[in-house]
Amino acid sequence: MAPNEPRQDSTRGEQALIARIGAAVTAQPAAAPLFRALPFGDDMAPLAPDGGWLWTTDMLMDGIDFDSTRHNWRDVGWKALAVNLSDCAAMAVRPVAALCAVALHGDLSMTAALELLAGAQDAASEHHCPLVGGDTNSWPQPTVIAVTVAAQPYSGVAPIRRSGAGPGDRLFVTGPLGGSILGRHLRPTPRLRESEVIARRLSPTAMIDISDGLSIDLGRLLDASGCAAELDEALLARATHADARALSERDGQSPLDHVLSDGEDFELLVAIPAHIDPAGAGVPLLPVGHCVAGVGTIDLRTQDGPRRLARRGWEHFR
Amino acid sequence: MAPNEPRQDSTRGEQALIARIGAAVTAQPAAAPLFRALPFGDDMAPLAPDGGWLWTTDMLMDGIDFDSTRHNWRDVGWKALAVNLSDCAAMAVRPVAALCAVALHGDLSMTAALELLAGAQDAASEHHCPLVGGDTNSWPQPTVIAVTVAAQPYSGVAPIRRSGAGPGDRLFVTGPLGGSILGRHLRPTPRLRESEVIARRLSPTAMIDISDGLSIDLGRLLDASGCAAELDEALLARATHADARALSERDGQSPLDHVLSDGEDFELLVAIPAHIDPAGAGVPLLPVGHCVAGVGTIDLRTQDGPRRLARRGWEHFR
Repeated sequence: MAPNEPRQDSTRGEQALIARIGAAVTAQPAAAPLFRALPFGDDMAPLAPDGGWLWTTDMLMDGIDFDSTRHNWRDVGWKALAVNLSDCAAMAVRPVAALCAVALHGDLSMTAALELLAGAQDAASEHHCPLVGGDTNSWPQPTVIAVTVAAQPYSGVAPIRRSGAGPGDRLFVTGPLGGSILGRHLRPTPRLRESEVIARRLSPTAMIDISDGLSIDLGRLLDASGCAAELDEALLARATHADARALSERDGQSPLDHVLSDGEDFELLVAIPAHIDPAGAGVPLLPVGHCVAGVGTIDLRTQDGPRRLARRGWEHFR
Repeated sequence: MAPNEPRQDSTRGEQALIARIGAAVTAQPAAAPLFRALPFGDDMAPLAPDGGWLWTTDMLMDGIDFDSTRHNWRDVGWKALAVNLSDCAAMAVRPVAALCAVALHGDLSMTAALELLAGAQDAASEHHCPLVGGDTNSWPQPTVIAVTVAAQPYSGVAPIRRSGAGPGDRLFVTGPLGGSILGRHLRPTPRLRESEVIARRLSPTAMIDISDGLSIDLGRLLDASGCAAELDEALLARATHADARALSERDGQSPLDHVLSDGEDFELLVAIPAHIDPAGAGVPLLPVGHCVAGVGTIDLRTQDGPRRLARRGWEHFR
């Protein structure tokens, strides 16, 4: 997850590195019992071989994920915890506790450091996931924050993976997308409540949170599930955040481009079997398209016919 | 943990910040069940209210904890995992799995990134603690690595805390100290095997790993335990690493200063009741002194009589 600047996939990129990492870590004999509980490459990693615990870590860097010259430290602290809670939401598991490691810029005041902590505690408290420890460092470079969150499955609900979607499943998002860089990206609401309801009532086949952009995160879901998708331009118009339109007026990109490529919405993208009606579940779900047979491609259905979409979004290590 | 440059405590420092953080996090109502299992401020944090899981996180920064212009990435990867495993050793618990989050300098090659991973996997594999996930980022600043390790108590052995030492307990270290900056600090051996043996056979009352320096880490143990200590100059002479002597010849500081103040030895400091004889336990333990009644002071017994020691070692955020 990172700012909303559109980027292209490349073989040098984060995905290529993650693929190499995946190959290396899944080859570890001692990891086999854990990866039987939950394979490598989902929103969270396995912690216990019995599937009773999952965990996730996300690192935020000043100048990339936030800007300390413009953003206040309390928001930054909130975001550092919230992006991890969003991973818990993506798998429909209950966050239990968090650790926070920081490399604070040496000139940071004690007040700023405690504001950062207070913001993390705001999110921790709101989502019943107490901060219980960490590591405090300083250095002469921009501040880095790494939070780790551990979670447990809700009683009677298996974690929702990215990999179960199939042709015919309908695709929904939990809220309008695009333009989060205008400010929303600093105070995301992890969709934990929505995620539990979806998992309990709607038999979701796959779920992921939209951290790097709809097209790139949908692509990940499709790769894991082994299918393709068709998005619908008219549906996406109704799933467009006002911020996407506002940003569009400034930068000349279309609102649709912002919906497809902006990162850090932290809404959930969920695949639900066609026979399940999400209305009345008590969760706002906006339809955006459906899954089809294929190998990871994303087509956009428009009035002028279909067009193939590139996966665009934030990618590190290009 | 950090390089071996001696530093002074100060009210602005890391300890003052950690005290403020401790006050804030222990006030979280949701954290109460966890801190009943293991109070805030030990080498690891509680993860499960039943005490069945503990975890720890440590962040390494280029230019502070390693130097990418001189050190190879495989060693750096080893160190990133090993410093966390050393926290597991400090509490005598069994590491189960690890996560690794990185902010890689943007110019780093794929080869270097994979070497870093390979080094972490070397340590993971040697200590049966597989790397199971993480977060991969890049940025234009020096590389940062944050590893989190989760662990479980050994069957029938409660985790050893910092806080149980009392007057009369003898103090031991698991190996000679000082001068680790000459190279040892990059390839520390987490004392996991030693720690399990100590916990099973020697009824330790308190244990900590020496990451920031003997005097500063002993000070932490004494603060947590509510007692004071006397170290013995003659015993410390026998617990002096050859690297401390070599460094002493270069920098003019005494070998004793290096033993007391150098960080990153990653040996264990353990308090054992006076009636327990550690000989024959199968673990090398070098006596360095003993605990006495008092409030956190450290005195050095010399041929010329006792002298009060300052706590010196690495401290962040001064």
